[in-house]
Amino acid sequence: MEQKIWLKEKDIPRQWYNLAADLPTPLLPPLGPDGKPITPDMLAPVFPMNLIEQEVCPDRWVDIPEEILNILYRWRPAPLKRAVYLEKHLKTPAKIYYKDESYSPPGSHKPNTAVPQAWYNKQFGMKKLTTETGAGQWGSALAFACKIVGLECKVFMVRISFDQKPFRKIMMQVWGANCVASPSNETNAGRKVLKEMPNTPGSLGIAISEAIEEAVMDKAGKTRYSLGSVLNHVLLHQTIIGLEAKKQLKAAGEKLPDIIIGCAGGGSNFAGLAFPFTADKINGADIEIIPVEPTACPTMTRAPFAYDFGDTACTTPLLAMHTLGHAFIPPPIHAGGLRYHGMAPLVCQCINEGLFTPRSLDQIECYEAALLWAETEGAICAPETSHAIATVIQEAKKAKEEGKEKVILFNYSGHGLMDLTGYDAFLTGKLQRYELPDEELEKTEACLKEHPKAEVRKSGKW
Amino acid sequence: MEQKIWLKEKDIPRQWYNLAADLPTPLLPPLGPDGKPITPDMLAPVFPMNLIEQEVCPDRWVDIPEEILNILYRWRPAPLKRAVYLEKHLKTPAKIYYKDESYSPPGSHKPNTAVPQAWYNKQFGMKKLTTETGAGQWGSALAFACKIVGLECKVFMVRISFDQKPFRKIMMQVWGANCVASPSNETNAGRKVLKEMPNTPGSLGIAISEAIEEAVMDKAGKTRYSLGSVLNHVLLHQTIIGLEAKKQLKAAGEKLPDIIIGCAGGGSNFAGLAFPFTADKINGADIEIIPVEPTACPTMTRAPFAYDFGDTACTTPLLAMHTLGHAFIPPPIHAGGLRYHGMAPLVCQCINEGLFTPRSLDQIECYEAALLWAETEGAICAPETSHAIATVIQEAKKAKEEGKEKVILFNYSGHGLMDLTGYDAFLTGKLQRYELPDEELEKTEACLKEHPKAEVRKSGKW
Repeated sequence: MEQKIWLKEKDIPRQWYNLAADLPTPLLPPLGPDGKPITPDMLAPVFPMNLIEQEVCPDRWVDIPEEILNILYRWRPAPLKRAVYLEKHLKTPAKIYYKDESYSPPGSHKPNTAVPQAWYNKQFGMKKLTTETGAGQWGSALAFACKIVGLECKVFMVRISFDQKPFRKIMMQVWGANCVASPSNETNAGRKVLKEMPNTPGSLGIAISEAIEEAVMDKAGKTRYSLGSVLNHVLLHQTIIGLEAKKQLKAAGEKLPDIIIGCAGGGSNFAGLAFPFTADKINGADIEIIPVEPTACPTMTRAPFAYDFGDTACTTPLLAMHTLGHAFIPPPIHAGGLRYHGMAPLVCQCINEGLFTPRSLDQIECYEAALLWAETEGAICAPETSHAIATVIQEAKKAKEEGKEKVILFNYSGHGLMDLTGYDAFLTGKLQRYELPDEELEKTEACLKEHPKAEVRKSGKW
Repeated sequence: MEQKIWLKEKDIPRQWYNLAADLPTPLLPPLGPDGKPITPDMLAPVFPMNLIEQEVCPDRWVDIPEEILNILYRWRPAPLKRAVYLEKHLKTPAKIYYKDESYSPPGSHKPNTAVPQAWYNKQFGMKKLTTETGAGQWGSALAFACKIVGLECKVFMVRISFDQKPFRKIMMQVWGANCVASPSNETNAGRKVLKEMPNTPGSLGIAISEAIEEAVMDKAGKTRYSLGSVLNHVLLHQTIIGLEAKKQLKAAGEKLPDIIIGCAGGGSNFAGLAFPFTADKINGADIEIIPVEPTACPTMTRAPFAYDFGDTACTTPLLAMHTLGHAFIPPPIHAGGLRYHGMAPLVCQCINEGLFTPRSLDQIECYEAALLWAETEGAICAPETSHAIATVIQEAKKAKEEGKEKVILFNYSGHGLMDLTGYDAFLTGKLQRYELPDEELEKTEACLKEHPKAEVRKSGKW
């Protein structure tokens, strides 16, 4: 039996899958400052029209331009692998398959959307993209994509990460991006914060405000902003993961998986794997689909469903999602990609429909799983990915107890070679457990009440 | 046309190729302290007998145990890729293929021998392996292999790297290895140096002495030492690279390559790719085979051929090789894996036979090539690998001038994600050119004359 299932380039999926077309109830629209659904032209200063059209696209399938495929071939199709060494260690009858998204040059699933976003902006006549980045995973993916496509790239990197993680910054520079610490002196938003708090470590919220400001202030109109998760078109681009996995599982002689698992911060890597199979679930297939988040930032498992801003500075439209409140500052866990107060509206809608059953895990348990992974499968995973692996181990043990030969599929969203300080903290006993106290959720409700349209729904549909 | 040529696990090579069996003239034997050829039992305190047998093996083919293949399947067979984006950028008629050895968990070709070495030691009843490491590439590969096989692993890491490259150390710790800074207080050799030079940055020579001492001083006799390059059995294990490449080139519809290129420090990644094709060259095939080294450490291109020690502390047998002298301290170039005073005797023998045509390059030119690689192919290569890429670019341009559709094959020996400080130095204009002055080579001759058996031969056979 082959442990690695390759797909030829000629067999790569040629269309992305749009789950919005198959949802039992339609997705709630984003709202503008006036509380009314926003129109595409309101987004035009921030995003190019061809991506805005994808954001609101009603079609089930969206063609992937040949030129984009010709870029993705650098690492795609990504392998589907079977975790035979972990299976053996756990003595589980479960078959554990995973998509290895660590093969991309920046080391994660992020370029699956960075490349199309850069390409569509280039098509639309843009010269430059701006974005924000925390730990640097997204910033380096966009830097890579812009270099390949031929766009300038400016990344506002949260000051504390800029200082503590110089390697990610160098990666961006290798791909020609201009990476500056945020808050910076280059935007009004940045200057304002620096004046008030000269020694601030910065935040994702501030960095988003700076990136959007730099995009919309370009008088020539040749700059746009790019986001690495949450939005519909971002999740759409990621579905190539699940669509490849379907073909590869078939090649491995499997039918549909019994369980699908992915970690979820903004939701894009999880959605990329899960959405093509969610269609089967809507059509009656028996699949358990589990997005996993940290107990330190329990958006899906404990937060209300509400209309809230996507950013801390309240500059984005209001999105219908599970949210800890746009003012929420998550504890400093090492899985930086899972420290987001909200969650992709499409993922939240599926949770409300009962299609997904989210779960939360503490980072200590996740690092234990990451270490077992390194000791059996050999590779060192990203701290985000460890949340998926820990859940896979739970399910593989359960399958053993039940004596069932279940097929488990998960997304190996990235490697951890740029995140070794988290491993060091774990190995030297310096890691802390984080369980969000109930008082924090009271703050969430207060934060949401500040905005009249942010009607809180604890559960169910809108 | 597919850009990535995969090989199924069932088609992996099942034997290593031993070039020693096909050399036009036999390899010169290592000499002991008495100037006489050493016998296998003299190596027994340092290496296990099953590996010593491989070191002196006269057979052309050596079976790869099934258990070793079952470990290598974690990342092998490695893909053969075609660098279509670089070809297009250079507008060359040449077809550029490369073996991507960066897919292994530690990120380089090193585990190809770390795994068999750990496995044979385990078979021989050993409990622990010791080794030295400079930048950490080899130490992390052996740590990985020992964890998978089930051996303790102790790595003596040169103090200055230990302090400057904490991430490699954490990698080793993730795989359970005990990594200590060298010189350490744990060996006589280390204590002696620390007493004389408490603030020394350490050296590979000292670290080797410490690792060998810790191995031979184990009273239970359950510890051995492991070396990551230079020796025959190490190069033997690496031939899986070239053997896979042969099958993959055939699958791509190619005959033999016209040019084969690899960077060479101790010689193992270069030999791994080149040796299986060297057999064809010995049998008359027209292949140009180019090992590439830094101008800062020009072992193959400028150093004499002599009997010299493998380590600075003069504890190893004398090896017949091109050498800058065991006392040579190379300038601080970023390609740490190419900073070695000697070269594998098997590679040197082929140079003397006229089978290989070595070349040297300055690191500035190599980083320029690495940046072009990142901008076209997308990936960030190791500083060592950049020497191969720069030579590939030279040859691709030459093919363009000549209007010839040459097939170039090179070894992409590892990624550079743990070596980004070198890129930073290059991008900020802090890198220095290094051309070894002639006076240094006079020191080499003086160093070699210290040992009566170190007869210097400027060229030709012994």
